[in-house]
Amino acid sequence: MSDHIYKIMELTGSSATGMQDAIENAIARAAKTVQGMRWFEVIETRGHIEEGEIKYWQVTIKVGFTLRD
Amino acid sequence: MSDHIYKIMELTGSSATGMQDAIENAIARAAKTVQGMRWFEVIETRGHIEEGEIKYWQVTIKVGFTLRD
Amino acid sequence: MSDHIYKIMELTGSSATGMQDAIENAIARAAKTVQGMRWFEVIETRGHIEEGEIKYWQVTIKVGFTLRD
Amino acid sequence: MSDHIYKIMELTGSSATGMQDAIENAIARAAKTVQGMRWFEVIETRGHIEEGEIKYWQVTIKVGFTLRD
Amino acid sequence: MSDHIYKIMELTGSSATGMQDAIENAIARAAKTVQGMRWFEVIETRGHIEEGEIKYWQVTIKVGFTLRD
Amino acid sequence: MSDHIYKIMELTGSSATGMQDAIENAIARAAKTVQGMRWFEVIETRGHIEEGEIKYWQVTIKVGFTLRD
Amino acid sequence: MSDHIYKIMELTGSSATGMQDAIENAIARAAKTVQGMRWFEVIETRGHIEEGEIKYWQVTIKVGFTLRD
Amino acid sequence: MSDHIYKIMELTGSSATGMQDAIENAIARAAKTVQGMRWFEVIETRGHIEEGEIKYWQVTIKVGFTLRD
Amino acid sequence: MSDHIYKIMELTGSSATGMQDAIENAIARAAKTVQGMRWFEVIETRGHIEEGEIKYWQVTIKVGFTLRD
Amino acid sequence: MSDHIYKIMELTGSSATGMQDAIENAIARAAKTVQGMRWFEVIETRGHIEEGEIKYWQVTIKVGFTLRD
Amino acid sequence: MSDHIYKIMELTGSSATGMQDAIENAIARAAKTVQGMRWFEVIETRGHIEEGEIKYWQVTIKVGFTLRD
Amino acid sequence: MSDHIYKIMELTGSSATGMQDAIENAIARAAKTVQGMRWFEVIETRGHIEEGEIKYWQVTIKVGFTLRD
Repeated sequence: MSDHIYKIMELTGSSATGMQDAIENAIARAAKTVQGMRWFEVIETRGHIEEGEIKYWQVTIKVGFTLRD
Repeated sequence: MSDHIYKIMELTGSSATGMQDAIENAIARAAKTVQGMRWFEVIETRGHIEEGEIKYWQVTIKVGFTLRD
Repeated sequence: MSDHIYKIMELTGSSATGMQDAIENAIARAAKTVQGMRWFEVIETRGHIEEGEIKYWQVTIKVGFTLRD
Repeated sequence: MSDHIYKIMELTGSSATGMQDAIENAIARAAKTVQGMRWFEVIETRGHIEEGEIKYWQVTIKVGFTLRD
Repeated sequence: MSDHIYKIMELTGSSATGMQDAIENAIARAAKTVQGMRWFEVIETRGHIEEGEIKYWQVTIKVGFTLRD
Repeated sequence: MSDHIYKIMELTGSSATGMQDAIENAIARAAKTVQGMRWFEVIETRGHIEEGEIKYWQVTIKVGFTLRD
Repeated sequence: MSDHIYKIMELTGSSATGMQDAIENAIARAAKTVQGMRWFEVIETRGHIEEGEIKYWQVTIKVGFTLRD
Repeated sequence: MSDHIYKIMELTGSSATGMQDAIENAIARAAKTVQGMRWFEVIETRGHIEEGEIKYWQVTIKVGFTLRD
Repeated sequence: MSDHIYKIMELTGSSATGMQDAIENAIARAAKTVQGMRWFEVIETRGHIEEGEIKYWQVTIKVGFTLRD
Repeated sequence: MSDHIYKIMELTGSSATGMQDAIENAIARAAKTVQGMRWFEVIETRGHIEEGEIKYWQVTIKVGFTLRD
Repeated sequence: MSDHIYKIMELTGSSATGMQDAIENAIARAAKTVQGMRWFEVIETRGHIEEGEIKYWQVTIKVGFTLRD
Repeated sequence: MSDHIYKIMELTGSSATGMQDAIENAIARAAKTVQGMRWFEVIETRGHIEEGEIKYWQVTIKVGFTLRD
């Protein structure tokens, strides 16, 4: 593992269901184009409110993925 | 949207169920007296423990709402 | 001055023109209902982009005002 | 306790005597109009100097109080 | 309560299910050897990704417990 | 809006004129290759000084843009 | 001094009297079981309020102590 | 450039006009006595309010300058 | 006041008595050589422990003073 | 220099040798595909331990590079 | 790995040689009494100066280790 | 030690060799004009890159030194 170089990208996922689903949405979408994702870290949890209720959650994460040689 | 002024209040919601429920409780309670809430941001997640188990969760959020003219 | 107690509120002002105007809008709006404002501090500067251009600026400030007896 | 919702306000108290007195002044003043205060947290400790001596202390605190139904 | 001294320890719990479960796992494990736990605070939420999916969540918390005399 | 995933990039714009111009330069340059930019946030404001005068301003921003499916 | 290794523990002391007393209480309690304490650093100052008055202060400190060989 | 040592000073400039002018005032004043200033960084933007309007802006910057041998 | 430029210095004062005394010592010592001090802000509160008791307090402050023309 | 726009990427380099080598590895790897790198900043230094010894170091840096027109 | 619970301790290592050696000293000393150490993170790098030269380096790290069942 | 007042200055040292050398350069240069330096703390580690290689390291430190009476 000691030779790996990782690149870190920042993503905001959203979901009407909750914060965990927002994170999973962001990672599922990223998996379509990015390979070698290894870890994530939650940076910020926000949400939009309409009519006194949470309409959707927005969670910003950092995701680290391996840079291939 | 560019003319809107928002005021931001800070709330701590609590719940025996979990952190997401604590946030929803805070917003539901605020909705009784505050109109025009638009977004929230999670500031801090804490909880109380009794007999080795989480008794209730406490989540502090900032909530932005429109100031009417 | 040593006996004064201040309350601090948090506001987000917006403006299509720029960040300084966004701050002035927030203070002008607050001045309609709050007396005794004494200082502000910039907390966050953000903005919305449409079609590759800044549509409006959003600046969040804290404003301190004197509590009257 | 698990059903309580708290609102958090930010206050700056001042005192010629010292930092602890500045905090107590802020809470005493708030107690005239706010009920159900439960906790505080010190955010910032500052002071004004004149002629090489501290003229008054200024301590900013956050205060949490119960929202009644 | 005013005479209590608390010690604060930092723990990282993990779970394949989600972030709330990771917190509960950490507290359940600590309860085997530590008595008098009173509160926790979430410090960091991370997770490991394999094949484009979250394999497990890792949540770091601080836990305060009473020091007995 | 609840299904959108955003990617966040970090840019430093510069300008001899001022901090607002430095932000607008960064966004104008990014608009040549990135579509769907939605918001920005100011991270850091710096500048270079020569002969006792500001030669150019450097403002670092984060920019969020929509990831298309 | 250059060979010493220190361990750092986090404590919350409380006191009805004030913040300095809360720190001294935490250190006095720790001195019963920990030897070789060398320095402390204040992390957080909080307090509980009842009937509009501060009931007790709670100060969280980090304490460094020498690890003996 | 690799042998240079810089010293960093912290200044607060003020201006009735705006935040950019406050920064330029601080640097112009410092240029009277300090040579070799090379960069600055904005630390804090505040202002004073009188009668509901911004009376002057106060911007705190760090300024790096070369230490001559 | 709007034309003033302030310089900010950082000082650590110490005292065997307590944290407030440590701050006053730092300001009294600075007053011997610096004129026009106007405000201070507490940055860090630490202390040294010997034989299980606080030997002296160390408080780091920032002090702003007017730059004369 | 005043017209340049920089993009900032975040990388984690690793090395069995030490923290400086981990940074150099990350930059050497990035140089294969990114041109115009101009500066870096250390964000976080971590490492993995096995059998009581550091197996490899992991240093996260931000790297700024020029965006060509 | 998903069932593991880690405890995190904070250590300050020192060395006359350099910062990397200070970290290795802290981990080597901890390895005498703690098993299952898995990672560390650098929190703070300081040092003592005598006669204008660095006498020893002091690096504070957090170390995570597995809690056995 | 309890009567000492320290002043803290901020310096950026640079070196083509590495981060530790950059710190030692800054302290060696400061020792020419400042007496009584007692400790330093690393604030920021940066560097410049040319042709895909680190040209020089830049480390910013705070240095505390005794104020003589």
